[in-house]
Amino acid sequence: MTDRPDRPGPAGPPDAEGPLRVALLGCGTVGSEVARLLTESAADLGARIGRPVELAGIAVRRLNRERPGIDPALLTTDAQGLVEREDIDLVVEVIGGIEPARTLILAALNRGAAVVTANKALLAEDGSSLFTAAERAGTDLYFEAAVAGAIPIIRPLRESLVGDEITTVMGIVNGTTNFILDRMHTEGVGFSETLTLAQELGYAEADPTADVEGFDAAAKAAILASLAFHTRVRAEDVHREGITEVTRADIATAEAMGSVIKLVAICTLTDEPEPRVSVRVHPAMIPSSHPLAAVGGAYNAVFVESRSAGRLMFYGPGAGGSPTASAVMGDLVTVARNRVRGASGPGESSYARRQVAPIGDVVTSYHVSLSVADVTGVLASVAHCFAEHGVSLQTVRQEGTGGTPAVTTAEVHESGGSARLVIVTHAARDADLSATVEQLRCLPEVHEVISVMRVEGA
Amino acid sequence: MTDRPDRPGPAGPPDAEGPLRVALLGCGTVGSEVARLLTESAADLGARIGRPVELAGIAVRRLNRERPGIDPALLTTDAQGLVEREDIDLVVEVIGGIEPARTLILAALNRGAAVVTANKALLAEDGSSLFTAAERAGTDLYFEAAVAGAIPIIRPLRESLVGDEITTVMGIVNGTTNFILDRMHTEGVGFSETLTLAQELGYAEADPTADVEGFDAAAKAAILASLAFHTRVRAEDVHREGITEVTRADIATAEAMGSVIKLVAICTLTDEPEPRVSVRVHPAMIPSSHPLAAVGGAYNAVFVESRSAGRLMFYGPGAGGSPTASAVMGDLVTVARNRVRGASGPGESSYARRQVAPIGDVVTSYHVSLSVADVTGVLASVAHCFAEHGVSLQTVRQEGTGGTPAVTTAEVHESGGSARLVIVTHAARDADLSATVEQLRCLPEVHEVISVMRVEGA
Repeated sequence: MTDRPDRPGPAGPPDAEGPLRVALLGCGTVGSEVARLLTESAADLGARIGRPVELAGIAVRRLNRERPGIDPALLTTDAQGLVEREDIDLVVEVIGGIEPARTLILAALNRGAAVVTANKALLAEDGSSLFTAAERAGTDLYFEAAVAGAIPIIRPLRESLVGDEITTVMGIVNGTTNFILDRMHTEGVGFSETLTLAQELGYAEADPTADVEGFDAAAKAAILASLAFHTRVRAEDVHREGITEVTRADIATAEAMGSVIKLVAICTLTDEPEPRVSVRVHPAMIPSSHPLAAVGGAYNAVFVESRSAGRLMFYGPGAGGSPTASAVMGDLVTVARNRVRGASGPGESSYARRQVAPIGDVVTSYHVSLSVADVTGVLASVAHCFAEHGVSLQTVRQEGTGGTPAVTTAEVHESGGSARLVIVTHAARDADLSATVEQLRCLPEVHEVISVMRVEGA
Repeated sequence: MTDRPDRPGPAGPPDAEGPLRVALLGCGTVGSEVARLLTESAADLGARIGRPVELAGIAVRRLNRERPGIDPALLTTDAQGLVEREDIDLVVEVIGGIEPARTLILAALNRGAAVVTANKALLAEDGSSLFTAAERAGTDLYFEAAVAGAIPIIRPLRESLVGDEITTVMGIVNGTTNFILDRMHTEGVGFSETLTLAQELGYAEADPTADVEGFDAAAKAAILASLAFHTRVRAEDVHREGITEVTRADIATAEAMGSVIKLVAICTLTDEPEPRVSVRVHPAMIPSSHPLAAVGGAYNAVFVESRSAGRLMFYGPGAGGSPTASAVMGDLVTVARNRVRGASGPGESSYARRQVAPIGDVVTSYHVSLSVADVTGVLASVAHCFAEHGVSLQTVRQEGTGGTPAVTTAEVHESGGSARLVIVTHAARDADLSATVEQLRCLPEVHEVISVMRVEGA
């Protein structure tokens, strides 16, 4: 290591003789893998960057943990001191959460260091502060690892498709919920049992709220929508429903419809009545023929539709130390190359300043399952209720207690007792569908609204 | 338009007041779409770049063709004069072929203009000259459209995965052959008839050689391998077999094996006995369960496997004016942004200088279909022939004239007359497999070697 004088300016090229120095914030699953790769692949990384790269320090919470393969001399509990070291060129943040990550990243950017982060929560809550700081300092903020693990999706949206007009981004971006829903399908068990299994297998956290309530997916959706539509979308702008209320009955119904239930993040651009974006995360029925339906286990996939490119899909491991580290390392080499050339990559592009449409204005179709009185006229009442709200029906199906085979006809057998009506609507405003369901709950002929789920990708 | 003085240096920032000026070389299917997008989306493009962008000239072969929506004042037949114009910042080359494209691109790069090209043939034949010129001038050479149309695959390999070690790239990168093979599967017709249909539908050129003989896919494979393995691979280094000899019988056999036949480009990294790469294009049997098997029609898909990221797949439209224009436009915005910042993106990374392994050293498994004398001892002779070359057998199956159901056993019924043996080998050196097949042709018990095909993705 050589001492370096004060750098000439925030984005100026580093000392041409010395290595680029990396500070790592966090040394958990992802961080320890990044540390390993930085050490073991140092020769290749240096050749790809055009300058040697060196792990110069690692900020951790506790010094006394066992960390195989990591030089204890690199460890410090003083993260703030580490990011403020004048000799640090690149900062990798894999702590997660809002604070202290934000303060540390801002400190690094403000003094001109480039930052690579996997922090979806922070980017979705306060990305604009970070982008502004990076822009002002003429340095880089890269975050490929923040969405969909190893799948290159940030760079394709930020660069490859930047000359096109993206109309839809729809993805399975949370591996935990995908694992749980997948198991519920294959094993026929309920949500709670499957969650317990996912926790035992390490696919779900002890506190699973961020995953199962859709917070994690919503943060990713906000990031994807911001990039795709050149506008600022924050996590709080995302309509969010988790999977805790998905029942075995929902899964069975989906299967009967030739569909699967997935937690999807959907970002769309609408032209009518004005250019707006809608961003939402919720469970949805996806036809088995749709490419996203086949995405199993902890895998992620993102489907992108644009005016010129058409329909694209990106698929791969959505989480885990090693895949996430791959994304971090790709960013690290990119920002290091930029630094060697005294350059920086793309900044925030939010010029379009589009409104975020409320969920009520989103146009989608619904699957509604009702327990009704099996009497003459019930179908007419139910159909009238949909019609009153301007929602047209695509199929109505009656299911008997013994699992009557599906018929896609509006003619439903009515003979007394209790029957089950399964309805799929045409696309309609979400608010109209919700109002319909509210009114259905009040109809005397409707014993119960068993399930209500959006249908996507049909 | 404002007149611009001589630029301060090749990679210096352009006149801060004026627009970035684009020269378009070629105005066919892709070029006319690029021209349309540059005009119609000018406001968005300017906002994304941070500077207005302007189509300043279009080089065409004939001035008197009908070109709806294109200002005739932009057209010129003097391509060389256009790229040498001092006010041109960015050159988009969509002529294709080696010359005059190479001379024009070099002229543009040499005077510091950035170049976006879709020219796979040129990149695969002489990419190093272009990269060297770009590097020397400190400017950009981008080529996302050269491989797999709209699918972002160049940027993921060049940047997203640059911190990882890629071990395999396997792709369906030629839409014409995929369309033909797909049709042969679904319609049960032969190659020639399907080629004629593909030509009528516009999926194949009047001279289909580049597609059906695998030249197009080989050029793309060379580009993918160069990026993935940080080494120079040229089209001539690629082992290439086309689809003209794929028969209806091959297709039927593949179906009986639960497989489909695809023309695949396969790039692999081997460690033994030394680090080498192998790059090949040939028809192969792919199990129906493999993600590439489901890629139909003119779609493309690229499957990437790396040490840290694991298995990734990229899928989308592989050709066509509009998708290819999307890729060109993404590059155009990226290089324009770089230019506004006085920066440039990644150059060539060929430091690894890996040897290209000859096809004989490639390890793969084979499907071999033989017409043999139906006499006692024939299986022993055939099996002995494989064993002599060190090739072990995975399954041997006998097919009767009436289409006997498949049995996966080495015990084959032998009773006189003629029988068909269908053999799948374990992975072995390609040279050993070829030698085995040569010897099989000489065995008196073997009436005919009906088909020989590699099995991939099993």
